[in-house]
Amino acid sequence: MKPVCLVLGAGRGIGANVGTYFADHGYHACLVRRSNQEALNESIDLIQKAGNLATGYLINVIEDDSVEDLIENIEQNIGPIEVLVYNLGAQSGMKLLAETSYKEFEWAWRIANLGLFRTAQSLIPLMQQREKGTFLVTSATAAMRGNKNQHSHASAMGGRRMLCQSLNAEFASKGIHIAHIIIDGMVDAPDTLGKMLGDKEFNKLKEDLGSSDLLISPLEIAKTYYQIHLQHRSAWTHELNISSYLDKQWWND
Amino acid sequence: MKPVCLVLGAGRGIGANVGTYFADHGYHACLVRRSNQEALNESIDLIQKAGNLATGYLINVIEDDSVEDLIENIEQNIGPIEVLVYNLGAQSGMKLLAETSYKEFEWAWRIANLGLFRTAQSLIPLMQQREKGTFLVTSATAAMRGNKNQHSHASAMGGRRMLCQSLNAEFASKGIHIAHIIIDGMVDAPDTLGKMLGDKEFNKLKEDLGSSDLLISPLEIAKTYYQIHLQHRSAWTHELNISSYLDKQWWND
Amino acid sequence: MKPVCLVLGAGRGIGANVGTYFADHGYHACLVRRSNQEALNESIDLIQKAGNLATGYLINVIEDDSVEDLIENIEQNIGPIEVLVYNLGAQSGMKLLAETSYKEFEWAWRIANLGLFRTAQSLIPLMQQREKGTFLVTSATAAMRGNKNQHSHASAMGGRRMLCQSLNAEFASKGIHIAHIIIDGMVDAPDTLGKMLGDKEFNKLKEDLGSSDLLISPLEIAKTYYQIHLQHRSAWTHELNISSYLDKQWWND
Amino acid sequence: MKPVCLVLGAGRGIGANVGTYFADHGYHACLVRRSNQEALNESIDLIQKAGNLATGYLINVIEDDSVEDLIENIEQNIGPIEVLVYNLGAQSGMKLLAETSYKEFEWAWRIANLGLFRTAQSLIPLMQQREKGTFLVTSATAAMRGNKNQHSHASAMGGRRMLCQSLNAEFASKGIHIAHIIIDGMVDAPDTLGKMLGDKEFNKLKEDLGSSDLLISPLEIAKTYYQIHLQHRSAWTHELNISSYLDKQWWND
Repeated sequence: MKPVCLVLGAGRGIGANVGTYFADHGYHACLVRRSNQEALNESIDLIQKAGNLATGYLINVIEDDSVEDLIENIEQNIGPIEVLVYNLGAQSGMKLLAETSYKEFEWAWRIANLGLFRTAQSLIPLMQQREKGTFLVTSATAAMRGNKNQHSHASAMGGRRMLCQSLNAEFASKGIHIAHIIIDGMVDAPDTLGKMLGDKEFNKLKEDLGSSDLLISPLEIAKTYYQIHLQHRSAWTHELNISSYLDKQWWND
Repeated sequence: MKPVCLVLGAGRGIGANVGTYFADHGYHACLVRRSNQEALNESIDLIQKAGNLATGYLINVIEDDSVEDLIENIEQNIGPIEVLVYNLGAQSGMKLLAETSYKEFEWAWRIANLGLFRTAQSLIPLMQQREKGTFLVTSATAAMRGNKNQHSHASAMGGRRMLCQSLNAEFASKGIHIAHIIIDGMVDAPDTLGKMLGDKEFNKLKEDLGSSDLLISPLEIAKTYYQIHLQHRSAWTHELNISSYLDKQWWND
Repeated sequence: MKPVCLVLGAGRGIGANVGTYFADHGYHACLVRRSNQEALNESIDLIQKAGNLATGYLINVIEDDSVEDLIENIEQNIGPIEVLVYNLGAQSGMKLLAETSYKEFEWAWRIANLGLFRTAQSLIPLMQQREKGTFLVTSATAAMRGNKNQHSHASAMGGRRMLCQSLNAEFASKGIHIAHIIIDGMVDAPDTLGKMLGDKEFNKLKEDLGSSDLLISPLEIAKTYYQIHLQHRSAWTHELNISSYLDKQWWND
Repeated sequence: MKPVCLVLGAGRGIGANVGTYFADHGYHACLVRRSNQEALNESIDLIQKAGNLATGYLINVIEDDSVEDLIENIEQNIGPIEVLVYNLGAQSGMKLLAETSYKEFEWAWRIANLGLFRTAQSLIPLMQQREKGTFLVTSATAAMRGNKNQHSHASAMGGRRMLCQSLNAEFASKGIHIAHIIIDGMVDAPDTLGKMLGDKEFNKLKEDLGSSDLLISPLEIAKTYYQIHLQHRSAWTHELNISSYLDKQWWND
């Protein structure tokens, strides 16, 4: 029975790439996304055709009991979850205060914060019994500073960053490696950037950029996620940023 | 008609002191707390006996429409809210992950984040029409780092800090002064520290400390809040910390 | 004998304004600048004509024994230095790495870091004996992040920020109030911004801006410096930022 | 001709381990330390016995022209420097302000800041011509906050962090990968921790700790340095922390 790498938010960008990369290195990839069975199948097929193990789930993590049941199910039927990738974003577009509804403000928190908290409460006790586990949390610039059209996103991600710190403070010494990974730039991902821009714009952008590497490669992100997981417990990284060499860092003018 | 200083979270610590201080300087203090009519009356009486204006409200800010109705009511019946003091804390004690319920995790977010967001959406448009307004948000060390027994508090306050930044980014240039004030130490406040320790312990602590000034004086905090409000728009402070000279700063060993 | 407010870096911007403001409130202002006797006299005259005390010095703080002798001299002949304003900047223009000489890299450190260290070593023991003293350090955005043409400035100011923290960590509990004040914007100052732009450009800029308050008023900064000094020891601020309501904060896009 | 990995500060901890690791992966390791020919020979021998290339230098980097000449020499006689590891620390013990001499305050800056600046000015133009290069800078907690007995160290490392940011801001887009790596914990290193504690204490500590992994393994650090170097330019990390799973993070209580 292979150990499991559970990816919550397995769009065809960071999520699916991280899952695939772990599958290539001996893990059973469990890919979870909210919708789009076709895209999910595509990701699962890619892994299986390479001779590796993958299982897909269409689940809305913000629904009651969803992630709790999923974790129980996987642990009983597939294998011990050794790696958790929390890749659920809370971006809902550039909106000023008057354009931001209570509903989306709450949604952002439910997906970015409460979902992580629930996942941690369900999964970390199991990891703790095994004295082993990796919690990789994808984050965004909005966790570091609040821009004017990011009220719900910044509030959600800023809270998530602090939650990663408190989890790390409680559980690192128990052998659980929690990492907060700030993706500070545009990722070459059809399900997020592509969706935001629309297919046509996205393809045009990619054509224009050519091999410039301005878009962050999700495969390259996956390699770093895997290396963080491989780190020996005497030399763990809790926080790091990732951006393209062409990106301006968020703190620079 | 005097301008209003509305204090959400008007316990007999920072909240009531800030309200009283603004009342002393020409504002009608509107003090809001969730419960304890007696303590509320005490705070109101103190202001009125000094010949100043004060009105008290027992309101639970996390209830639907509560703060929205309150703001409308005050604007119609008392005066324009020129100063808003968001002093609602989200501390619910030192609890490890297993001890933290979904319910209190959500409560912390509702009071620290959603409440501020709702207040901003109701009040800032009015301030913006008047091209004038001060938003003073009390914050805590948990907004800056997550400790192991602060999962809900840190997540809530970290989100709040980012929300203060995004509000500032959108509204400073419209004349709304938003300040995030990190209280990094124990405040001499019967309704928070006193409640946490119990009356007996609290009184003993105060006796032991004597005039050492280890506890932060809420009156002295109030003076700084007022000075931030007085700052000219060419020289605004958005973030500052406050601690006793005897406190170790959160970043120090 | 009045207590002294010693301003190192007393150009006709923040420095002279802070000195004047403290002189208005009962301090003997000792103004120190490296050059320009005429401008120094002008600042001193303004204070004296208002009926207050001021003494001027042309001193290059980076020279050996300069600040050490000055502090001894003032303490013996003028009065106890109760307030120190370290207002020496280390900006030397926008220069890429190839344009930055070893010499100016060292100069920036000498003025921003070593000068503050020497001042602290000379003055803080005296303040400590009196269990009283305020150390106000003017800082810049470059202390918070390094931009591409700020190699020497950022290195110098980043070091200075940490030194302010270590001084605070050692001496706050001894009654010495150390504050690190990040000026994040252009100040309306003829001796710095004016010198950088040239008189003609500077005057044109001010005319164009009119009463927009985009330039930070050094008088308004002085008021905040004074308020920090007034803070009671139970409620001290160590770090704060100041910018115009029209400034974009350094962390925002 | 193999590419060179130049390690400045090649003590038998992080420095020698990083050099050895890069030598194992195809680099000519150039190890530089200030003194102790015997220890240097030991490190060089280890690499050579494994069939890899290494050259040792006893050089005091703070001396005029030292690092400039070294870089020229290596580029002409050994190979292109593709990786630079700036591993020179500036720790000189726990000293309060009165115990810190001007001399050691200056030394800390010369080694932590000026040395890095000089290295960057000599080496980055060569890397830029080749559109390729990795600059790995070892940093410490003192770059993030100043403790009371760290005046010289904190000032030096705080400045260094900002310099790394400004170098990154100018040169990342030119293909130079600059990383600031915060080592937040005690490293199992005979030439630093061992020297600080003395041989006897150090050995006793290691015996007591056994296989607890409280001391950070320099070999494990080396692996992370190498992975940062391997990162594709579309997904670079500029800043990360490393600590043992048993270490309390600097921001936690």
